[in-house]
Amino acid sequence: MKLKVYDTTLRDGEQTPGISLTPTEKLAIALRLDELGVDIIEAGSAITSKGEREAIQDIAHENLNAEIASFARILKEDVDYCLDCDVSMVNLVVPTSPIHMEYKLKKSPGEVLNQAVNVTEYAKSHGLKILLSAEDSTRSDMNFLKEVFKQTISAGACRICPCDTVSMLTPEKSLNFYKELSSLGVPVDVHCHNDFGLSTANTLAGIRGGASEFHVTVNGIGERAGNASLEEVVVSLNQLYDNYSTNINLNQLYSASKMVSRLTGAYLEPNKAIVGENAFSHESGIHSDGMLKNSHTYEPFNPELVGNHRRFVLGKHVGSKGLQNRLEQLGIYTTNKELSKIFDLVKNLADKGKIVTDADIQAISDYVMDIAEDTKVDLQEVTIVSSNRVTPTASVKLGLENQMILEAGIGVGPVDAAINAVNKGVKEFADVELEEYHVDAITGGADALIDVIVKLRLGNNVISARSTQPDIINASVEAYIIGVNRLLEIKKKQDE
Amino acid sequence: MKLKVYDTTLRDGEQTPGISLTPTEKLAIALRLDELGVDIIEAGSAITSKGEREAIQDIAHENLNAEIASFARILKEDVDYCLDCDVSMVNLVVPTSPIHMEYKLKKSPGEVLNQAVNVTEYAKSHGLKILLSAEDSTRSDMNFLKEVFKQTISAGACRICPCDTVSMLTPEKSLNFYKELSSLGVPVDVHCHNDFGLSTANTLAGIRGGASEFHVTVNGIGERAGNASLEEVVVSLNQLYDNYSTNINLNQLYSASKMVSRLTGAYLEPNKAIVGENAFSHESGIHSDGMLKNSHTYEPFNPELVGNHRRFVLGKHVGSKGLQNRLEQLGIYTTNKELSKIFDLVKNLADKGKIVTDADIQAISDYVMDIAEDTKVDLQEVTIVSSNRVTPTASVKLGLENQMILEAGIGVGPVDAAINAVNKGVKEFADVELEEYHVDAITGGADALIDVIVKLRLGNNVISARSTQPDIINASVEAYIIGVNRLLEIKKKQDE
Repeated sequence: MKLKVYDTTLRDGEQTPGISLTPTEKLAIALRLDELGVDIIEAGSAITSKGEREAIQDIAHENLNAEIASFARILKEDVDYCLDCDVSMVNLVVPTSPIHMEYKLKKSPGEVLNQAVNVTEYAKSHGLKILLSAEDSTRSDMNFLKEVFKQTISAGACRICPCDTVSMLTPEKSLNFYKELSSLGVPVDVHCHNDFGLSTANTLAGIRGGASEFHVTVNGIGERAGNASLEEVVVSLNQLYDNYSTNINLNQLYSASKMVSRLTGAYLEPNKAIVGENAFSHESGIHSDGMLKNSHTYEPFNPELVGNHRRFVLGKHVGSKGLQNRLEQLGIYTTNKELSKIFDLVKNLADKGKIVTDADIQAISDYVMDIAEDTKVDLQEVTIVSSNRVTPTASVKLGLENQMILEAGIGVGPVDAAINAVNKGVKEFADVELEEYHVDAITGGADALIDVIVKLRLGNNVISARSTQPDIINASVEAYIIGVNRLLEIKKKQDE
Repeated sequence: MKLKVYDTTLRDGEQTPGISLTPTEKLAIALRLDELGVDIIEAGSAITSKGEREAIQDIAHENLNAEIASFARILKEDVDYCLDCDVSMVNLVVPTSPIHMEYKLKKSPGEVLNQAVNVTEYAKSHGLKILLSAEDSTRSDMNFLKEVFKQTISAGACRICPCDTVSMLTPEKSLNFYKELSSLGVPVDVHCHNDFGLSTANTLAGIRGGASEFHVTVNGIGERAGNASLEEVVVSLNQLYDNYSTNINLNQLYSASKMVSRLTGAYLEPNKAIVGENAFSHESGIHSDGMLKNSHTYEPFNPELVGNHRRFVLGKHVGSKGLQNRLEQLGIYTTNKELSKIFDLVKNLADKGKIVTDADIQAISDYVMDIAEDTKVDLQEVTIVSSNRVTPTASVKLGLENQMILEAGIGVGPVDAAINAVNKGVKEFADVELEEYHVDAITGGADALIDVIVKLRLGNNVISARSTQPDIINASVEAYIIGVNRLLEIKKKQDE
């Protein structure tokens, strides 16, 4: 059975405290959702503001494959604003629980029902398709809920959506709840929240109960603990259930997740299912060994299915097979005796609570294999001058065997200036490219330790290097120089 | 029915790529877990390293209420290491799926079965309690799986745990799977992973199927997408199911989560269920209005139940009720007309994609209520010199009415130096204290925008101020000056 995906990233998702998107950002996300293959995009809530209406209208005018909807309360004013935005569909939301009707609307159930019917008729008469959502339906009286749906269906609603607004459902209850509401003559949508971490399971149960369309957001963003996550529901259907499919292009899930994360500023925890950085990462010795023998050992499916990729990380649980594999990737070939010594030192480092980077592994291998520390480039001076009145400027003095290189650079800030100066200095003898620059969040004070990691490329070799110091500029420059030396060593060995 | 909580934060959790705890940190977490009320603590894997064994032994010697276990493979060597650590229980893990036996162990099912029985007998004869875990049991042949359990139970295992190692279960399958394995004469543990976002639901289904103990980690940390999360399962049982209870002290969940997050460095996404910063935050106008009328409207339970707390955030979905509430908290009382103007301007700001801070609200209110913009302190110059050869030094020139203040400062880095210089300059006329300094993660490049937020105190008034610029030093100093002016204005009004 082909299910429809109703994406509400731009409405439920944007209601996340701390998330606020510009019209341009909303449009960019809508285009991406359309490409991803969602069937309906709820672009926002037209009543919210002028900017929001411009955003919804811009999206509606793009003629996307996806249908465009706007949220509305059961007020003619809200429907009028939806009409201004040129959407084809309205998600008309009726609070149906006693607590919502009494405290939020201050209306009796009869008044709410009448108002819902009137506004449905009004929207219908103006040519809108109507999805009738019952808010807090899982704390509502079932008879009243059915009455609201029956009468609004008569008034013109073409779909209904009983919402689990505050996560009252378990998978068992969800199955029965959506089953009971699937016999009212129109298709049913399932809409779940994640306050107990059950939104994916409850959505799947709603589908098994008869819902033919499900409401999700990219990365599961939304108020409080968020909404059901698009990627979890879609991939669960694909991998764990036989009878359902969607129009989603699975291999775009990872990149769509990244984009939404970047534009909303809502960063994902590394172990977010399917799209997290750790979702296909392997550390422990046992697991990495199994993975090397057969990638299926510790993965439910290949990361490429969703556009993500596999990563290996070394830590204190590393096994010697995992370490050897990483050494070979770095171009280091050892005897068994050397491997065993390197292994002990890596473990020792990891026992101290340190994450072992490539730079650490290389340094340890050099030591064990008695490779002379052959620092080619040596940082002699770095000086920056920065002010609100002048362009941030940096100078560096680098030693290279018997040469001395002096270079200066400017930038948007002192860190950028320093990196630019080093980059120019190094370019004279090695065409190194800075692929990534990452500074760890500084919390707790202006004097906190700063952890800088750079990723550098020289030809086909890519390495990462890090430095941790209280001074952001010294840390940045040192990491860069460590990386350059490492690349020059690798190149030298390859040339030999 | 009282269920037992088997916490594996220190084993499964620590296997998360990027997480590496020192023995001291492991002990601190174990003490906290014991206080939280978990029944069994799997403290680590004794075979891993010398440091790991020290950590496990230290925990075992604390005489906690919780039982202490170590992970072991079906090798006598592993059991010996567990004995060295003085644990009372071993989690003996037998891979039972064809793929694990063939590719990882390179052994036939018969060989695996014999080895499992032999090592169980060995552990039993040395006085250990044995939890027999079947790894990848959900991709195993059911008859073989039952045979492994039956023979190891005869050999001395007192509990069994069929593990859903790569998340093959759905809630429906989990119910049947654990039900089928609950008739072998010993209690059953449920152990689920989160690759599809279903670990909480699958754990709950396993309990309904007959498991009397469940495996969880704090914050759901673990390899790939992690393990079932302690707080989600425990609170779901408490709130959504009638027949189950645990020994967990619910009101310690939030602080335990924070502690594990801090020590592991695995930060939570804000909308993590139950323990996330947003789990009880409310932004949208509709919701905040409902919340103000009755806190139950948009919450499944009170945040205090789990030691978390409610937060209100203003953004573009803010309603005028929510805004008025915040204004009053800031000591600003408006007429309806003024409120309506402030509301429009706040919306306008939020439409541009900006999060509206207290500082923004104050500035807008001042403007609308025609309060003269009275900048007391004015930043005229800030200059820094920093180098790897000299102490980072900054100078500032501040204007204060007709005065000019010149001050210099040093620091561990240029940002610290600049903040110190401004701090000293301001001290001359206002004894402002820097309570918090926060720089947002800089990703993607050395020239990214930097968002600085400072929290300043003057007497009993605390405010936050922000500045966003590419130059970290200018942003830091500007945020500081904005904050100082705000504090001086508040003080002036209070003095009037």
